[in-house]
Amino acid sequence: MYKVTKPTLLLDKKKAIKNIKRMAEKAKASMVNYRPHFKTHFSKEIGEWYRDLGVKSITVSSIDMAVFFAGHGWDDITIAFPVNILQMDVLKHLAKAVKLGLVVESKSAIEAINSEIESAVDIYIKVDTGYHRVGIWHENVEEIKRLGEAIAEPHQFKGLLAHFGHTYAETKKEKIQSIYKGGVASLNSLRDQIDKNLKISIGDTPSCSIVDKFENIDETRPGNLIFYDVMQANIGSCTYKEIAVCLAAPVVAVYPERSEVVVHGGAVHLSKDKLEDEEGTYFGKVVALEEKGWSTPIKGCRVKSLSQEHGKISVPKDQIEKIKIGDVLGILPVHSCLVANLMKEYMTLRGEKIGTMFG
Amino acid sequence: MYKVTKPTLLLDKKKAIKNIKRMAEKAKASMVNYRPHFKTHFSKEIGEWYRDLGVKSITVSSIDMAVFFAGHGWDDITIAFPVNILQMDVLKHLAKAVKLGLVVESKSAIEAINSEIESAVDIYIKVDTGYHRVGIWHENVEEIKRLGEAIAEPHQFKGLLAHFGHTYAETKKEKIQSIYKGGVASLNSLRDQIDKNLKISIGDTPSCSIVDKFENIDETRPGNLIFYDVMQANIGSCTYKEIAVCLAAPVVAVYPERSEVVVHGGAVHLSKDKLEDEEGTYFGKVVALEEKGWSTPIKGCRVKSLSQEHGKISVPKDQIEKIKIGDVLGILPVHSCLVANLMKEYMTLRGEKIGTMFG
Repeated sequence: MYKVTKPTLLLDKKKAIKNIKRMAEKAKASMVNYRPHFKTHFSKEIGEWYRDLGVKSITVSSIDMAVFFAGHGWDDITIAFPVNILQMDVLKHLAKAVKLGLVVESKSAIEAINSEIESAVDIYIKVDTGYHRVGIWHENVEEIKRLGEAIAEPHQFKGLLAHFGHTYAETKKEKIQSIYKGGVASLNSLRDQIDKNLKISIGDTPSCSIVDKFENIDETRPGNLIFYDVMQANIGSCTYKEIAVCLAAPVVAVYPERSEVVVHGGAVHLSKDKLEDEEGTYFGKVVALEEKGWSTPIKGCRVKSLSQEHGKISVPKDQIEKIKIGDVLGILPVHSCLVANLMKEYMTLRGEKIGTMFG
Repeated sequence: MYKVTKPTLLLDKKKAIKNIKRMAEKAKASMVNYRPHFKTHFSKEIGEWYRDLGVKSITVSSIDMAVFFAGHGWDDITIAFPVNILQMDVLKHLAKAVKLGLVVESKSAIEAINSEIESAVDIYIKVDTGYHRVGIWHENVEEIKRLGEAIAEPHQFKGLLAHFGHTYAETKKEKIQSIYKGGVASLNSLRDQIDKNLKISIGDTPSCSIVDKFENIDETRPGNLIFYDVMQANIGSCTYKEIAVCLAAPVVAVYPERSEVVVHGGAVHLSKDKLEDEEGTYFGKVVALEEKGWSTPIKGCRVKSLSQEHGKISVPKDQIEKIKIGDVLGILPVHSCLVANLMKEYMTLRGEKIGTMFG
């Protein structure tokens, strides 16, 4: 049994494994490579849970993260972030050690790879299918073709990589499916026009959660779905019961007169990522901690504001009398990746500590 | 000279020392104890800069932070956060090692201290003068008196502690001065009614920056003013030139067609703390990095959105052509404390690395 005396990120290992197993099976049934994004958990030990399910290839979001996981037995790593040409010396060494996938979207990045990396790397061109964060607009076929042609031996133009990040703004299944289908169609049209051997890699948690079977793609890279969070529950990617992490936060002050409690659990634990609903802004939903996990969100109970260490929680009037200083409340995070990054460590429901690349 | 290849938190040591020196001198001239809050920098080495200015007492925001600084030669530490009664065993040991100040606002916290801590601690009652985060409302004189009377030997009811956090919502000097004056008056009225020997401790960066001379208080605890940030510049606590930290972020993508660049510098570096102005939401202001520091904010250039690792920056149309992949932009943070917590390390302009309690 776990014991909490200060802000602690609880991890329900069973739920997490169930979440990734469901995805691994879906990918297998669709004959698609599952290359999970490790930017959600940052943990060598959690990485092994994927390995136990047969996962051999991973995605990371930074060069530091690639170096960390390369040091822990992962030898097929894609860095799904545009190449930072200032770190070519690190990439050069990494390319010697592992099968490295790099994402580019500019001539200067390709030139840097061509001239500075000796060992063969797989190059993916980042394609924008509507999110407008990074990538080349999918209709710019000639530009993508030209970039592909600029890739020199021993490196290989391996595929087209996209992130349908605009699914995060949706809450309707049909909308997410439509973004997914449109994106996959755009990528296939591009592939048809450029080179039929190119691989198509996609990876947002909403569409990967909602789509039943993958077609016309080669690889899927979701990360967040191992833990999920309130944002994903709102989108419809998961139910509240599937959320596998929960911040345990001790109550340090109770205010019956304003129906609020304050916990030790602030912006340095929960991040400032927030959501809005009809009652206003919130930074997490409150659950009751139980020996075997936690409840679904308590109605009307939410983290309404955060400062660095304080979390202010509104509580329904009829429940405030039940909460005492020294109680521990559970908070389902709005965005689990950022919370894992801040907390640097997990505690399982059996009380085992699990570290990350940060500690 | 510093060299940056990945997201790096630059620290202008001269500015930081100037910021704390100004405060140390103001406190001295006002004959007030300066007990700086170390929750902004988290660093043993930066702590020494204060010590060199004669600072002997510090404030921290968590028990972990108290333990860290106690381990680095600080022996007069106030934890300015309501006592978490689940961590009495740590506090018990800490109280043996250092002169410990604890903040309470409930009977149960005082009872826990009375029964579990043997070595004498200084107890401050947290008073709410209008911020409504934690503390007892300043007009509840009897409640505060009763709590004070519950403090048992060897512990001492040392003082009244407040945080005028509502100054953060203001941008007019007069408004901040008025909150400060009102708060100090409330605390003095309380002291007069309870015990004239009580100390009054206050500490928000806006009022500590704006007030010229402290009167009728005994102690000041600002933390953020060592670095300042865009939020404080907006409030009027500092000028942009006084901001002492800046995130250096490499450009990884340039989009002339939408006048945007993307840098490696996201929510895991800058936090999701944000501000609004007439042009919308932003997560930082962009400056040009120079050998001896950085410029003031470039007009029209701002961090408009963040994902985990990406920062999307809007750039004026006439300047986008000047920015190339591999350039490094400077970003003045919205909230420097959260950025320091995330970055875990600083680099001075001379290229020296400075660690924190996180790494």
